[in-house]
Amino acid sequence: MKRSKFVPIMETIPSIDDIRQAARRIQPYVHHTPIFTSQTLNKMTGVTLYFKCENFQKVGAFKFRGACNTVFSLSEKEALPGVATHSSGNHAQALALAARLRGIPAHIVMPKTAPKVKVAAVEEYGGIITFCEPTLEARETTLEQVVQDTGATVVHPYNDYRVIAGQATSAMEMLEEVPSLEVVMTPVGGGGLLSGTALSVKYLSPATRVIAAEPAGADDAYRSFKAGYIIPSVNPHTIADGLLTSLGEKTFHIIRQYVDDMVTVTEEAIIRAMRFIWERMKIVVEPSAAVPLGALLENKIDLSGKRVGIILSGGNVDLAQLPW
Amino acid sequence: MKRSKFVPIMETIPSIDDIRQAARRIQPYVHHTPIFTSQTLNKMTGVTLYFKCENFQKVGAFKFRGACNTVFSLSEKEALPGVATHSSGNHAQALALAARLRGIPAHIVMPKTAPKVKVAAVEEYGGIITFCEPTLEARETTLEQVVQDTGATVVHPYNDYRVIAGQATSAMEMLEEVPSLEVVMTPVGGGGLLSGTALSVKYLSPATRVIAAEPAGADDAYRSFKAGYIIPSVNPHTIADGLLTSLGEKTFHIIRQYVDDMVTVTEEAIIRAMRFIWERMKIVVEPSAAVPLGALLENKIDLSGKRVGIILSGGNVDLAQLPW
Repeated sequence: MKRSKFVPIMETIPSIDDIRQAARRIQPYVHHTPIFTSQTLNKMTGVTLYFKCENFQKVGAFKFRGACNTVFSLSEKEALPGVATHSSGNHAQALALAARLRGIPAHIVMPKTAPKVKVAAVEEYGGIITFCEPTLEARETTLEQVVQDTGATVVHPYNDYRVIAGQATSAMEMLEEVPSLEVVMTPVGGGGLLSGTALSVKYLSPATRVIAAEPAGADDAYRSFKAGYIIPSVNPHTIADGLLTSLGEKTFHIIRQYVDDMVTVTEEAIIRAMRFIWERMKIVVEPSAAVPLGALLENKIDLSGKRVGIILSGGNVDLAQLPW
Repeated sequence: MKRSKFVPIMETIPSIDDIRQAARRIQPYVHHTPIFTSQTLNKMTGVTLYFKCENFQKVGAFKFRGACNTVFSLSEKEALPGVATHSSGNHAQALALAARLRGIPAHIVMPKTAPKVKVAAVEEYGGIITFCEPTLEARETTLEQVVQDTGATVVHPYNDYRVIAGQATSAMEMLEEVPSLEVVMTPVGGGGLLSGTALSVKYLSPATRVIAAEPAGADDAYRSFKAGYIIPSVNPHTIADGLLTSLGEKTFHIIRQYVDDMVTVTEEAIIRAMRFIWERMKIVVEPSAAVPLGALLENKIDLSGKRVGIILSGGNVDLAQLPW
C-alpha cells in the first residue's frame, strides 16, 4: 500500500519493538541521562527514590527524545522540506536541534509575545522562526500557511506515536539500570512523557505501578483520567509552565489503559519540592519536574518503604525569576 | 619511637602511596563524583572542558574527602574523645559527618553570629556546637578550651597533610577517568584542594599543568605565589565565600613546588561563570566553584584547543540570596 504523506508512520500504540527501535535510532544523538539518589530525600520521604535526570538531556528536557525519534523516523523524501511546529517551549528547541542534526530545516511558529530568552534558544539551535499573534487560532493558521509554503511535516509536541515512543526511552533506560522498581512517577501535561513511560513500564516490568502527578491548578488530566474522557484544560494556573496543555487523544488512549493512578499537587508543595531538589541534590530542575516529589512531600500517596523511580522531566528555568 | 598525641600522623608531603591509601580509606564513605561535559561551554570557551562535580560530594563539597581521611586515619585511642575545629563553613559539616560515620563526637566552635542555616546543617550531621564571640581570637581560645575539656583532636580545614591527601583523591579520580588532560584547574582559598590536586597531577600525569584561579578581591594566594612567601589575606572581599582564608605553610609548601600558574578573576566573571554552569549544565555550584571557569571567560589564560579538567569544588549556596 502506498503511504500518503499525511498518514503518520506509526498508526497504532508503540510496541516494545517500536520503543527499542526508537532507542537505537536516537542513541547517537541523545544523552543517556544519569540516575541520581539522595539519602536526605529518602529519609525525608521514607521512600527509596531514583531520579532519572532528563534535566541533563540535550536542550534541557526529555522532549528531545521524542522530537529526535520523529525527525529521524521520516523518510528521505519526507525529511527534505523539513519539520514544523507551533511552540514556544522545550518542544520548539528540541525539534530545532533534532532537525539541525539531520540537516533539515525546522520551522517554528511562535507568538510574537514569546520571551526573548525562548526565542534566542530556538535561534541558537538553528530554528527558523515565524512570529504570529498570541492566540491559538493565529498559531494554527500560521502553522498551516508555513506547511503550505514549505511542505514541512508538522511534529506535534506529544500527540504522535513516534514522539511517545521517543519519550518512552527514558523510562526504558531507568528500568534497565534500576531493578525491581515498585512505582514509576512522572508529571503530566499533554501526556507524552507519561504515556511513553507507561508503555515502557508495562512492557518491561508489568508489576510496577505508574503514577502521574499533576498541579492542582491544571488538573485536567486528573479529571479526564477519573471521568474516562478528555476534559480540556481551561484557564490553568500553575508555576509548572510545562504542564498547561490538555491531553491528546493518542496520549489519553494509552494513559487510560496503562496508568495506575493520578494525584494532584499544590503550588506550595511543587515549589518546596523544587527547592529541596536544588538544595539537596545540587541540580537545577524546572517546576514541572518537581511535581512528583511534591506529591510525596504532601503525602498525596503513601509509598513508604517502596522503591520509586521519578523522571525529572527538565531543567529549563529562568534563573532571574525563581519562586523563593 | 613513641608517637606523642600532638605529632601529626603524616609529617611530610603526602606521597602517591599516601594518596592511594587515602582513597582506599575513604572509599566506603565518599561519593565517586561524576565528570560532566558541556558542548555549549566548550564552544563558548574554545576549550574541551571536564568538570569534576564535587558539588555532588557528601555535604556538598570536596571538603568531605579531607575530613574523612583525617578522621579515619586516627588511631582508636586518638579517635575516642572525638575531633574538633572552629569553622562555620563546609569543613564544619564535613568533619561532623565524618565523625558521625566513625561513631565519635565532633566539637564545632562557631561564632554566635553564624547564619542559622549553617548552624542547622552542622546539627543535622550530629556536630556538637560551642558558640563564641565572632572574632578569630575568641574562636581560637574557645577551641583550646574545648580541646582541654574533651581531649578531642583538632582537625584543621586545610593545613594538615592528611586533609591534603584526602582532597588529592578528587583529582586522582579525574585523571584515572579522563586521559591526557593538558591542564587541571581549581580555585584557591586556604590551598587544601589546590595542593592535593597538584600532588595527584604531578605524581600521575607530570606533563599536565596545574593552574589555580583566585578572586581578585581575595588575591593573597596569587600574591604569595608570586612573592615566594605567605602574604596573609587582609580584608578580602568576594562573593566566593569559600576562598576568604589565607594559605597555610603546608599547603603553600606544596603549591610553590607543584603549581604552574595562578590567575585572578573579577567578581563579574565569577558570577557570569556561575550562572552559565547553572543554566547550561543544570547543576548548582557555589561561587567558589565557578572561579576557574570565570578565568577562562575573562581570557585570563589562553587554553584554546586544550583538554582542561576543572574541579567544581562545591554546591552549598543560599538559594534565597543569588547574585543575579
